[in-house]
Amino acid sequence: MGSDGATGASPIRVALDVMGGDHGPPETVKGALEALESHDIELLLVGDGDVVQAELAKHDLAGKPVKVVPSVDRIGDDEHPLHALRAKPKASILVATGLLKSGDADVLVSMGPTGASMASAVLVLGMMEGLERPCIGGPFLGMGPRTVLVDMGTNIDCRPALLVSFAALGAVFARSFLDIDNPRIGLLSVGAEEAKGNRQVQECFQLLQDSHLNFIGNVEGMDFFTGRADVIVCDGFVGNILMKFTEGLGAALGPFLEERLSSILTPEELDRVTSDIWRATNQPRIMGGPLWGVNGAVVLGHGSCKAGEVAGAIDTAVRYVEIGLVDSMRQELLVVAGQQSASKLKADS
Amino acid sequence: MGSDGATGASPIRVALDVMGGDHGPPETVKGALEALESHDIELLLVGDGDVVQAELAKHDLAGKPVKVVPSVDRIGDDEHPLHALRAKPKASILVATGLLKSGDADVLVSMGPTGASMASAVLVLGMMEGLERPCIGGPFLGMGPRTVLVDMGTNIDCRPALLVSFAALGAVFARSFLDIDNPRIGLLSVGAEEAKGNRQVQECFQLLQDSHLNFIGNVEGMDFFTGRADVIVCDGFVGNILMKFTEGLGAALGPFLEERLSSILTPEELDRVTSDIWRATNQPRIMGGPLWGVNGAVVLGHGSCKAGEVAGAIDTAVRYVEIGLVDSMRQELLVVAGQQSASKLKADS
Repeated sequence: MGSDGATGASPIRVALDVMGGDHGPPETVKGALEALESHDIELLLVGDGDVVQAELAKHDLAGKPVKVVPSVDRIGDDEHPLHALRAKPKASILVATGLLKSGDADVLVSMGPTGASMASAVLVLGMMEGLERPCIGGPFLGMGPRTVLVDMGTNIDCRPALLVSFAALGAVFARSFLDIDNPRIGLLSVGAEEAKGNRQVQECFQLLQDSHLNFIGNVEGMDFFTGRADVIVCDGFVGNILMKFTEGLGAALGPFLEERLSSILTPEELDRVTSDIWRATNQPRIMGGPLWGVNGAVVLGHGSCKAGEVAGAIDTAVRYVEIGLVDSMRQELLVVAGQQSASKLKADS
Repeated sequence: MGSDGATGASPIRVALDVMGGDHGPPETVKGALEALESHDIELLLVGDGDVVQAELAKHDLAGKPVKVVPSVDRIGDDEHPLHALRAKPKASILVATGLLKSGDADVLVSMGPTGASMASAVLVLGMMEGLERPCIGGPFLGMGPRTVLVDMGTNIDCRPALLVSFAALGAVFARSFLDIDNPRIGLLSVGAEEAKGNRQVQECFQLLQDSHLNFIGNVEGMDFFTGRADVIVCDGFVGNILMKFTEGLGAALGPFLEERLSSILTPEELDRVTSDIWRATNQPRIMGGPLWGVNGAVVLGHGSCKAGEVAGAIDTAVRYVEIGLVDSMRQELLVVAGQQSASKLKADS
């Protein structure tokens, strides 16, 4: 492997914020090198020079397409994202995002902090037309790996029209990332009938029905498992609660099963099934979440990621670039914006 | 057992809407007679006379404290609750609620339809002072059986002050039903800090902080499993989605575990663990949910209940009466109303 990859195309250039994540450089560097084994990519490792070199020295890099891009400082979990970005203009996340902006990288992967990574992406890359803030979406559960949830938590108070944009982006993702033709869009509510739901959902129902999307109506909490919809849309408040609830439930199922099965299963068998459940309930953590709506391919991993999940986020990043998700999403938002101004004109006339 | 129960006190009179539930009289009657085995209660079975008698004829009733109270018609799941109650003034749910109103019963148990049972309770019994609509709360998960969730889905768009009333009712429930001293109240949000959450939650945070409740701040989705709070408060939109999501996840875990364990466990062992998971994720369905805020003790079971869960709902109903939950809740709401008008006066002056 290397820049003369088997496909003949140029390798995808992945900028990784090495300083990010709770476990920092030892895990991010290890994960990045793991990802090199299975992809024709070039790694741009952004971080404090000495720290990155010290980590790289632990591995055999002979012939591997790895570049170190020096940065100064990192942004911590406890800092206010915007203040910190202003105070540390050479911080790893800003330098890494800059590589994407200047065209020196094709995709950016960051293990957080999420707030700083998002703010950096919005500031440096800018938002796509028709969206004010990015959103996070993707497959949410190992028991329903082809059902996409959006928004997973970046937009807390949403106007109904914003949920339509999320739905449109979810449809693009389902089509190009999951190969689902004409994805079915469901609006998360408390009953299937149109009249069910809070004001936000009731207004959004009408907007989705008037849109070009394949809207199937309201769906409910159990429909993450029934396969009724390919994309389930909710605001980030509900999405974030659901995601953390699921992670908590997955973790609680470990001891729950252990109590019932430890006398029947071997420790290895028990470990295998509880790990499977953990993975199924921590899907976004494992694959990394593409940040939708910024002008560039950005994949955010969970802060607690270890090397395996860092490699998983890079997998996602590679596919994100290969299928041209940023361009498709940008075009889709223009369609939605056109529809919304047309209905506004109609309503005003 | 019977009216001369061992305790010397009069037996609790349980009015059951026999016609309710998806499985109707065969299961409701069977469940009611099951509950008789373990409680000193008197059963008032409300339903179409012939139908109830036909069911009772299948069982040995000798010496059992069972009365049949005739009604005409039942309300279906597909009917508009208020219209149906008006059109069918002798429907089983109205007659059963009337027994509570007139003092001929101590508690009402209904397996649905939920909308009609709630409407009947509100119309016939009236609301407690300080609340406009009832709410449903209770233990929510078998993995966290001492954590109470309120509201489970009856109040979709909530003013922040209403969430404070829910919190107060949850505290009463945790104290008297679960014997928790000074219950810790958590507000469900997307981060622990005060500034995290949507507008509703941010406003409610301040109100809870100013209240007499033991408010510990925001909690997150994973805190249903961490035991950080005894009562978790959210509006019915979020609560209903969470509840149905959990039921769906519990159901999906069955095949998920079967796929991984069917070659290792015997069918009986596998069945036991998947049933345990089902029960842990269908807690409200099993125990029945007390309807909080109406002037009378009403317990609602899930429509799909079979006899065992009908008996479970009656267990809950008996305890509901024994601990005097209705009176404690009424007093607590007066305290909250007093506080809220005091802070309003202060704000206006």
